[in-house]
Amino acid sequence: MSDIKKRVTIYDIAKEAGVSSATVSRAISGNGYVSEKNKKNIEALVKKYNFKPNTFARNLQSGFSKTIGYVVPHIGNMYFASVYYEFEKWASLNGYMTILVNSKNERQLESKLLRSLLEKHVDGIVIMGGRVDEVNLEKRYIKEIKELNKTVPCVLCSEKAEDFGCCGIHVDDEIGMRLIIEHLASRNYKNIAMIGGGNTFVPSALKRQYAVKIAKEYSINLDVSKMVHSGFGYEVGYMDMKLLLEEKPYPDAVICINDYVAIGAMKAIHEAGLKIPDDIGITGYDNVAESYLTTTKITTISSNYHKYGKAVYDCLQGLIEKPNERKRETMLIKPELIVGEST
Amino acid sequence: MSDIKKRVTIYDIAKEAGVSSATVSRAISGNGYVSEKNKKNIEALVKKYNFKPNTFARNLQSGFSKTIGYVVPHIGNMYFASVYYEFEKWASLNGYMTILVNSKNERQLESKLLRSLLEKHVDGIVIMGGRVDEVNLEKRYIKEIKELNKTVPCVLCSEKAEDFGCCGIHVDDEIGMRLIIEHLASRNYKNIAMIGGGNTFVPSALKRQYAVKIAKEYSINLDVSKMVHSGFGYEVGYMDMKLLLEEKPYPDAVICINDYVAIGAMKAIHEAGLKIPDDIGITGYDNVAESYLTTTKITTISSNYHKYGKAVYDCLQGLIEKPNERKRETMLIKPELIVGEST
Repeated sequence: MSDIKKRVTIYDIAKEAGVSSATVSRAISGNGYVSEKNKKNIEALVKKYNFKPNTFARNLQSGFSKTIGYVVPHIGNMYFASVYYEFEKWASLNGYMTILVNSKNERQLESKLLRSLLEKHVDGIVIMGGRVDEVNLEKRYIKEIKELNKTVPCVLCSEKAEDFGCCGIHVDDEIGMRLIIEHLASRNYKNIAMIGGGNTFVPSALKRQYAVKIAKEYSINLDVSKMVHSGFGYEVGYMDMKLLLEEKPYPDAVICINDYVAIGAMKAIHEAGLKIPDDIGITGYDNVAESYLTTTKITTISSNYHKYGKAVYDCLQGLIEKPNERKRETMLIKPELIVGEST
Repeated sequence: MSDIKKRVTIYDIAKEAGVSSATVSRAISGNGYVSEKNKKNIEALVKKYNFKPNTFARNLQSGFSKTIGYVVPHIGNMYFASVYYEFEKWASLNGYMTILVNSKNERQLESKLLRSLLEKHVDGIVIMGGRVDEVNLEKRYIKEIKELNKTVPCVLCSEKAEDFGCCGIHVDDEIGMRLIIEHLASRNYKNIAMIGGGNTFVPSALKRQYAVKIAKEYSINLDVSKMVHSGFGYEVGYMDMKLLLEEKPYPDAVICINDYVAIGAMKAIHEAGLKIPDDIGITGYDNVAESYLTTTKITTISSNYHKYGKAVYDCLQGLIEKPNERKRETMLIKPELIVGEST
């Protein structure tokens, strides 16, 4: 036999005290009249069953659940996990609990999860990555998020937040790409390729546009056409780097869409018996892998997770608690260059 | 001006319809009498304000919130993130939403978060890592978790679950260590050191005990005294490996408490100009880094995240939904050896 008791509801307390549930509610909240005798009875039962005052009931009156929904494609991606960690820290410090769901980049699943979050009466929702970053947004999807945003304030960690009529926060990738290309120029790299990412995702598409524009300013030959495989994982970097190495001459530096792709590319370079950074320079993005992850520390871009997570929380809190002051705005997180040993 | 409306409560609907909130509740739930006229009015207002039937209110009657609390020290650790991902998949598939909080291994913060979860009336709680894994458990803490478990069923991903009177799930580290040592023996490693982890944490302490016992069976000389720094990060592996390399002769293989420590150790070996696995073999644990993360793929132990996350969910669901059938039990997840290039 377990010593774990069945959850006691306000109705169980009411039944045992021989009063209505409304009376129990009044006794617990301290709002409204309850006879001394009933009050004593109810207090004893609350203690007996370790019954906790129900915030869901309180919620009916305030209209706030102090609960936030947070949607990511996959929390196993360190980028999402790091921002969530910072966000949750500030949220719980301020009395908000956060429901974290994984959308797996699947349309139907994301829609279902958003409906479930609404049913939980969350006070606000953060969407980070996945469908909101698609280049070609379906009208139906825009409508869905606009409707959602009418019910609860939403913060989108996406360049496309405005299209949804939502507040947006994202890393300023134009600055990020400028930092990378400036750095590569200062190290005298002249023929650069760019690999990884996907054409259907806004952040990848924009990073490529920025890179092409900025490379011109520095008279660097940048080839963005070498991306054969799309994706954000090690294997994409590995496979595309292998293809690049078959060419003569191969590029003297490769910009990778993120650190995972960079790690894959570095593996291919090592296997070919070439040296990093002497034969080929490599840059990553996101600073997920930290300095010790690879034997050669990667030059990368830090998204300032501390600032990012706090900015997302501050923005959503403002939307929830000061709805009249809130404006639809997009905030940019300024990234920083971290110079490693790979360039 | 924002087009996001203020959240409408059941009281706003009641006021505008000129009825009591109880009437609105009856109309929405379909339980109890409401006049046709009031019903029509209320339905129109619900539509007008996009008001969602409030599960918190329903919750008062069923006693279930369909919400689960999940506590980890830091979701940025891939081990926790991977199990959570699998858990959340099954939870949301079954209509449960999961609140994920980071305890940062801080006592006061964890206690505060647990209280907050109770106030949200979660149906169950998962605790993974952190205080529950401490070798010397404070009586006060055991009492705290026992009390918690009386209020809501708890599943502890810990070897110490029984001490708390809770159901427990954890990886069978005896099998894990056996797989590693059997493998090292088959590759003719004879002098082995073990680094990383902490003496105050049960999983580390147990892994060391198992390793010593099993090494004897294989007549392997295992030195567990070389751990100078305690911890689970890259830098611990790097620093302790550097110390090991100062000795003559250095060990021919090093068992690392997890993959992060292994990656740090590999960096130190590379810096010393030594070859893996010829000069020194390295094993990791947890399979967080995946095959491409390091230029030399690490031999490691997979904890079967799929099975692990599902087992945690199944266990908690049983405790919540079938409280009379539930038993206090500990379930072991059988790990698997993944042979890489580091041995």
